[in-house]
Amino acid sequence: MSETQTYPVEARNRVKRRHDRGFYDHETVHRLLDAAALCHVAYAVDGQPYCTPTLFWREGTRLYWHGSSASRMLRNLSEGQPACLTVTHFDSLVLARCGFNHSADYRSVMAFGQARLVADPEEKCRALVMMVDRFFPHRTAGLRQSTDQEIKATAVIAMEIESASAKIRAKGVADDEEDYALPVYAERLPIRTVIGAPEPCPRLRPGVARPADLASYRAERPLEEALAEAYAEAYRG
Amino acid sequence: MSETQTYPVEARNRVKRRHDRGFYDHETVHRLLDAAALCHVAYAVDGQPYCTPTLFWREGTRLYWHGSSASRMLRNLSEGQPACLTVTHFDSLVLARCGFNHSADYRSVMAFGQARLVADPEEKCRALVMMVDRFFPHRTAGLRQSTDQEIKATAVIAMEIESASAKIRAKGVADDEEDYALPVYAERLPIRTVIGAPEPCPRLRPGVARPADLASYRAERPLEEALAEAYAEAYRG
Repeated sequence: MSETQTYPVEARNRVKRRHDRGFYDHETVHRLLDAAALCHVAYAVDGQPYCTPTLFWREGTRLYWHGSSASRMLRNLSEGQPACLTVTHFDSLVLARCGFNHSADYRSVMAFGQARLVADPEEKCRALVMMVDRFFPHRTAGLRQSTDQEIKATAVIAMEIESASAKIRAKGVADDEEDYALPVYAERLPIRTVIGAPEPCPRLRPGVARPADLASYRAERPLEEALAEAYAEAYRG
Repeated sequence: MSETQTYPVEARNRVKRRHDRGFYDHETVHRLLDAAALCHVAYAVDGQPYCTPTLFWREGTRLYWHGSSASRMLRNLSEGQPACLTVTHFDSLVLARCGFNHSADYRSVMAFGQARLVADPEEKCRALVMMVDRFFPHRTAGLRQSTDQEIKATAVIAMEIESASAKIRAKGVADDEEDYALPVYAERLPIRTVIGAPEPCPRLRPGVARPADLASYRAERPLEEALAEAYAEAYRG
């Protein structure tokens, strides 16, 4: 009975180079998105491309990110404009026996759609709550409420994913068969992004302890594990 | 006698939002670039923006990256086309006492210029050597030489940096003064990208040991330290 949903494969998202590395199913694409906090968004203003790093989050097949109402990215967005949001998990550097086979292991997603400013007050309000709760489940309920001025100063951008692709390389050293006979050192150099020891604000009020909801963010844990767990919790809770 | 060189500040690279976080001097911009291997490049094809992750390296005020000769990014590049190459070091998630002040510490660079295919055989040859040696100093000399077919299949893209900006947030929790009185937990959650234990290729020839030049890539070290060290060594050696 399970039906695999996939994003449509078009010219813009078809993985051309190394198409064996391409995936279009929702499950793969969403899993890689939900394990990340940081993305890079490409958009163009008057023909000039920009590549802006920002925090983002997902709700179904819709992506959200935010910015200052004054930011460059947001001009002319109310009508919607084409954008590409990319997430990359950088897993290793690969040292091979020839220059050509030097590479990297990675898991990335490119998502395409029309970015638009969220104008509807209800959608904006829910999005601003999820901007915090998606990373730190149930947190918003305990915070000082946002002021009207803060809400006005924050622009929320939404982009329905029209097409997307995931690209994964996870094979370490892959030399030409005849090159394995060479007396050349080769290795996979793993890379991981981890959480450090949490640094409580030095100005905490007496008796204010770290909430149990933050337990998944613990020192030495891979960030992507904690983010994926928080995502699942936020959308279940 | 020291003269601080800076990139020109234009409309496209001026840090508009939080301009107190903006830097334009070569030293800051180059230091952040040289501590990274992965970048994201924004470019547009027929009005559609793309955001592509790739390995890159720097030579003076010129950036290089590469791709397959068949890749989408490289079509129509011979004439040069506007691009933006961005590098982001993601340093923390910041939990504040209100939603608006939730943030992240980061160090990023956006570099603007005209991307062009490297056609000159001599420049391409030198660039392909530095693509390996910039990350792993002196390595190319010990590798199986590239074949003509491999060189042909690899496209090298160069972009002279016309303008660039660095943007740095490094202050952890920064709440409104009156909010520090609230009984709300707040913290800085540090994030770092580290090297794991190197995984030698299982098919190494007997007696082939890890070269001393790779010593800076050791387990638990921050990746950016090893990359910055390798960069300095490659351009000194």
